[in-house]
Amino acid sequence: MTSGLAQLPDLFDMETTAQRRMIRDGLYSGHTAGLAKGNLQCNLAILPGELADDFHAYCRLNPKACPLAGVSRAGEASIDRLGNDVDIRTDAALYNIYRYGVLEKQVNDLKAHWRDDLVAFAIGCSFTFEDALRKAGIEMRHIDRNVTVPMFRSSIETVASGPFEGGMVVSMRPIPETRIAEVFKICRKYPLAHGAPVHVGDPATIGISDIDKPDWGEAVDFSSGEVPVFWACGVTPQAAIMRSRPPLSITHAPGAMLIADVGEHTDPIYPYNDN
Amino acid sequence: MTSGLAQLPDLFDMETTAQRRMIRDGLYSGHTAGLAKGNLQCNLAILPGELADDFHAYCRLNPKACPLAGVSRAGEASIDRLGNDVDIRTDAALYNIYRYGVLEKQVNDLKAHWRDDLVAFAIGCSFTFEDALRKAGIEMRHIDRNVTVPMFRSSIETVASGPFEGGMVVSMRPIPETRIAEVFKICRKYPLAHGAPVHVGDPATIGISDIDKPDWGEAVDFSSGEVPVFWACGVTPQAAIMRSRPPLSITHAPGAMLIADVGEHTDPIYPYNDN
Repeated sequence: MTSGLAQLPDLFDMETTAQRRMIRDGLYSGHTAGLAKGNLQCNLAILPGELADDFHAYCRLNPKACPLAGVSRAGEASIDRLGNDVDIRTDAALYNIYRYGVLEKQVNDLKAHWRDDLVAFAIGCSFTFEDALRKAGIEMRHIDRNVTVPMFRSSIETVASGPFEGGMVVSMRPIPETRIAEVFKICRKYPLAHGAPVHVGDPATIGISDIDKPDWGEAVDFSSGEVPVFWACGVTPQAAIMRSRPPLSITHAPGAMLIADVGEHTDPIYPYNDN
Repeated sequence: MTSGLAQLPDLFDMETTAQRRMIRDGLYSGHTAGLAKGNLQCNLAILPGELADDFHAYCRLNPKACPLAGVSRAGEASIDRLGNDVDIRTDAALYNIYRYGVLEKQVNDLKAHWRDDLVAFAIGCSFTFEDALRKAGIEMRHIDRNVTVPMFRSSIETVASGPFEGGMVVSMRPIPETRIAEVFKICRKYPLAHGAPVHVGDPATIGISDIDKPDWGEAVDFSSGEVPVFWACGVTPQAAIMRSRPPLSITHAPGAMLIADVGEHTDPIYPYNDN
């Protein structure tokens, strides 16, 4: 992976403020998992003004797949709900700039690319609930195996809004059958991290033909007594944006999340019924 | 940009063999413009077997936008036409792995991702003719300004093949009107670098409404007596691949080209009539 890690062996030992400063100053462009412990980390999607309302509505209509932590005002570099000290243009470690769905370039900051009509969407990610499940003694197989969580295109359709539509992407984690009720209970506490699972058991029910062939990420093994449990996944809005091929879209690079200046137990803008 | 440059200040002073070794060993993941002088540099597109024949035909049918330097046999890591010492899995500085058009990850090599059905397409790029024009004393404005060449979606349709289709993407360079004939003559010598221009003059003729608002890259200024000249561009096949949203596609990261083990004056697999 492209990473400043080799240059900066002590980054993971630094205080959160110093880590965020390194990212802001363009001195670190790698993965952010494990950095800024306790701070909210977000998926970032930035779109031109003419698409912003439709995408905002898409997130509101599909809150489990696209839980909104915050939305910027057009052209503004801050998002109030993410804390005082957040600059959207600098605080993700690495940005991808796409035009018509083709990756044009990767940059450490967006200062040279900022426009008055751009709207930024900060979308929650699964880090929070994974931490909580592990603290409850429930294994996260993909973390133990050091691979990317397996993700699948499902037959669960999202609610369309303007050009944004398509099947929900789901992530899968093997869970002991005896602990599923507990998993639901814990995950409901984290609506910004996709909340409770969307499906438990037979993958075919949600249109997945082979659990060993994920569409993104790596397959993981099952232990005796474990069943597949599926969560709504933040790749859903990414796939919807790419499918619509907007003239301009900007995202964080994979794994290089936007680190907020608030704690990870932040609520989404649009609470949802998660029973 | 994410780059090993800060760590490796002397890379640009090294011999070509040493530079290629650094890339192969994963020690450099930045831009390759100016590296391995004299060696052919290629755009790289890797597709699963079931899409390979259609894409191969797409390149053959659209040779100015997709000039093929070489195609691998399924699952093989070498391409004979690119020289003895080329390994597709390691010899680009940085790779992007997409699934259904969504960037999944970036890797320094493809060893962990290689499959027996993958077919690699090495497609020429514009470096060669730009060098030749500059040697002839014709300015390349985007190079002098240190920006990415401006590129546009045009109304020139490509010849479709299977799921691959769409408008030709063109790059634009301001050229003094008095030197256009010379530009055609020089560029015809480099069919692998997109050959002669596809259009000179009024952008509206090929569906471009505003020359100062490129779809990719940056706008450049015109000097007195210069007219816009348009070339077929290697973003055309990238856009066609992304539009088709294949289950898997792998490309070089922007600017991090595949460096071949043959000289830059190599011919394309499919010569074309460039009058």
